[in-house]
Amino acid sequence: MTGGRTTEQPPAPPVDAGPGPLITLGVIRTGYATREDCPRRPWSRPEPARIHLAPAYADIVLGLVPGVRLFVLWWGHQSDRDILTRPVVHDAPPIGVCASRGVHRPNPIGVTLAEILDTAPGVVTVRGMDCVDGTPLLDLKPALTLAGTHLQ
Amino acid sequence: MTGGRTTEQPPAPPVDAGPGPLITLGVIRTGYATREDCPRRPWSRPEPARIHLAPAYADIVLGLVPGVRLFVLWWGHQSDRDILTRPVVHDAPPIGVCASRGVHRPNPIGVTLAEILDTAPGVVTVRGMDCVDGTPLLDLKPALTLAGTHLQ
Repeated sequence: MTGGRTTEQPPAPPVDAGPGPLITLGVIRTGYATREDCPRRPWSRPEPARIHLAPAYADIVLGLVPGVRLFVLWWGHQSDRDILTRPVVHDAPPIGVCASRGVHRPNPIGVTLAEILDTAPGVVTVRGMDCVDGTPLLDLKPALTLAGTHLQ
Repeated sequence: MTGGRTTEQPPAPPVDAGPGPLITLGVIRTGYATREDCPRRPWSRPEPARIHLAPAYADIVLGLVPGVRLFVLWWGHQSDRDILTRPVVHDAPPIGVCASRGVHRPNPIGVTLAEILDTAPGVVTVRGMDCVDGTPLLDLKPALTLAGTHLQ
């Protein structure tokens, strides 16, 4: 702890710099009908999931090919956004939601590492997804560089 | 390519399942005043960044400690959200923004792997950030499990 570092007062972000409205770029079809069905260790589950792009956004996946690992960003539409902390064990203080990877958090943006199995116009089939069927897609980002250099 | 996989028509997400409004949980202070100043390989840049939580959300980081690697989710408030594809080389077709990690995309949510250097009430000091000074914070997620098992 370096208390001195906390004395600096940060400026509030500019009024026009706040997050804008999110766009549903597509829908993620998985075999998990409910949150309870979703795997805790998705990389141990081979079931493919299909990411269906909305027609207006089909071009955003041009260039993605099978074998590419990517981060799938999705909106946890079943999350409780009012939860800020969560218990760990009965006699320990709670931890903040940012110290966990649970789905309940103020901005329920899921980040799942997945691997592309197949691509077709407007559809990307992946393995490794852990969200419920019908989850809104927010973004896809290649993870190869991170996996190969940054996270090793 | 398995064209048959594309024949299934996905249902549109329920009307009430779309992304809700994002909340600015804090502000990320970095040494990069402009996007041009931001490093391409942030893990090669030791400069610390300070994540200042908004007072109402200070508890969401309880339990985070130095040494933890986490994904910092931030809002690219300087991004062009209308860009869907980008050129690669002059004689090749463009790729979709989801085949790149550029900042310009319909939902400009940055995902940066960072390492905690220090924690204090309402402030988390990290290294590895690559966003401009004053970027709105959206979320933090521990990356240890991914780094230790999933991405190795």
